[in-house]
Amino acid sequence: MPKAAAKVGVNGFGVIGKRVADAVSKQNDMKLVGVSDVVGDYRVKLGEMKGYQIYASVPEKLPDMKKAGVEVAGTLEELLRKIDVIVDCTPAGLGAKNKVMYDKAGIKSIFQGGEKHELTGSSFVAQCNYEENLNRGATRVVSCNTTGICRTVGTLQNTIGVKKARVVLFRRGTDPWESHKTGLINTVVPEAHIPSHQGPDAQTIIPKLNITTMAARGPFNLGHLHFAMVQLKGEPEKKDVLKALKSAPRLAPVRISDGVDSMNAVAEMMRDLGRVRADMWEVAYWEDILDVTDGEANMVYQVHNESVVVPENVDAVRALTGLETEGSRSIAKTNEAMGIGNKFL
Amino acid sequence: MPKAAAKVGVNGFGVIGKRVADAVSKQNDMKLVGVSDVVGDYRVKLGEMKGYQIYASVPEKLPDMKKAGVEVAGTLEELLRKIDVIVDCTPAGLGAKNKVMYDKAGIKSIFQGGEKHELTGSSFVAQCNYEENLNRGATRVVSCNTTGICRTVGTLQNTIGVKKARVVLFRRGTDPWESHKTGLINTVVPEAHIPSHQGPDAQTIIPKLNITTMAARGPFNLGHLHFAMVQLKGEPEKKDVLKALKSAPRLAPVRISDGVDSMNAVAEMMRDLGRVRADMWEVAYWEDILDVTDGEANMVYQVHNESVVVPENVDAVRALTGLETEGSRSIAKTNEAMGIGNKFL
Repeated sequence: MPKAAAKVGVNGFGVIGKRVADAVSKQNDMKLVGVSDVVGDYRVKLGEMKGYQIYASVPEKLPDMKKAGVEVAGTLEELLRKIDVIVDCTPAGLGAKNKVMYDKAGIKSIFQGGEKHELTGSSFVAQCNYEENLNRGATRVVSCNTTGICRTVGTLQNTIGVKKARVVLFRRGTDPWESHKTGLINTVVPEAHIPSHQGPDAQTIIPKLNITTMAARGPFNLGHLHFAMVQLKGEPEKKDVLKALKSAPRLAPVRISDGVDSMNAVAEMMRDLGRVRADMWEVAYWEDILDVTDGEANMVYQVHNESVVVPENVDAVRALTGLETEGSRSIAKTNEAMGIGNKFL
Repeated sequence: MPKAAAKVGVNGFGVIGKRVADAVSKQNDMKLVGVSDVVGDYRVKLGEMKGYQIYASVPEKLPDMKKAGVEVAGTLEELLRKIDVIVDCTPAGLGAKNKVMYDKAGIKSIFQGGEKHELTGSSFVAQCNYEENLNRGATRVVSCNTTGICRTVGTLQNTIGVKKARVVLFRRGTDPWESHKTGLINTVVPEAHIPSHQGPDAQTIIPKLNITTMAARGPFNLGHLHFAMVQLKGEPEKKDVLKALKSAPRLAPVRISDGVDSMNAVAEMMRDLGRVRADMWEVAYWEDILDVTDGEANMVYQVHNESVVVPENVDAVRALTGLETEGSRSIAKTNEAMGIGNKFL
């Protein structure tokens, strides 16, 4: 187990990358050595203003980045030589190509949920399978939706036991920063396949979970809303389900009775909490909508697609580098550094 | 059984009322005697242009309606004396007060899903319980969402048999004509209670149906999208489920493979079909999304909230007046007159 702080790089300074860089910077057992991208836009410039060393992911892009006014410290290849682990936050599908480069540089690598499980042979949700990822060469932090399912349904699986889970996901249409992609107006687009990919993806984390999922995209960008109908083992009551959920990390209750009656109310609470970018690293479940009847828990929860996986990436750094052998201790460290709890009020 | 055409009035010329008036006008065993409202706005004027006799639902509003330029034929009380049955399409909750007036006039009355089942003691979906409503004094056509559930899940219940149905409803935020009500922008609002009211409401039609529902409203107005997860009896395959659905009236398949990949694509198809107001009286289910695994049918279907109950109201007229003793024959007549089928292509 290395005594020194883990030296971390982030490749791709987009929605996830810029947040992971901020989160890594806050950990006292990690050092953010640099971030890498292919443009010198406002996001990269804001990273530079925070003191992040900027690298060019593709050497050919370096001159343009300099021309844009960014002081580029070097190429990604040079960054890789200075770090122990890279968090790959490049667009989905680039991971396979990038991994060759990371492996050649002899460093550990963490990918996002847009990559296939097969790329690393291992996937990651800290509270579910941290220890399985200990000292591995590479892992994949699953997507926001899968993370949401693993934290909620996974908690029920690991405490009460799940006979069968059915989850319907209403996904955000685009991310807030995207106007160049097609946004949805006044429509809903169902996923063409049942089960949607999130169900099988959750099984990469919790292989024995009996789950099926259906999904659709709608005209909103505040996050995802999941409707979970979970048949439980035994005859648990609502208090048993709540006890399990409240004991789990990174799950926090919200209540209609507090006026939190919608996705936008949850988002507004994050703004009022002073969260940077109004991020919500926790999965917010409605405590007073939750119903448990005949051993079946029906619940609604909100997943902030832009930020929910960020603490997971931090924990993945500790798992791969062996900085911390126990998941619960890594989770506690990350939570402490970032201000993550399991309640908002 | 009356030999003469049923004399029908419509009280409330809004979203449902104007459509019911049009639909009744198309039946050769009914006569639309008049419609009644409390304003003389563009909708009422367009009704007048179609030749509908306009009445004032409240005598005090008659002068204003005349002042607006509408030739008012009289008051609702006068209309009631000329008809056999009234279809009440007034805003939800007014039914109870109105029913006193209808009963006093000695005519039969049909209410909409915004009223309570207890108002009439009977609810109505033609293909489920027409015969139970035969010659009754009053009935309630259930809401669009409940109608959608009864047609789809009800069909499976009556053919294959349902162990348990779970339906998640993604409801439209407002109706297209409404800008005075709060529309939703960029959010989703979950129903505060589980089960949402549609599950128990479906049981007013199909008492033995084991069903639970969850619902939310989203920022779109093209209709509702339902995600149904239905545990079936026996071990049916997809072909068995499709056979049942395709044999039922007022259910029509749509296919991703035809480019019908979203709510707006379904709506566009209705426009291209030349449907008045782009109405869709059928429930549209995705044939190629439908999955049947381990005896559980998971399906997505779209319900056009503005029009799906319109043919039901026409059938309810026949049931209450005894114009037709068999539901299947009434459905066939209504469908023929309105151009309703069980396929679009």
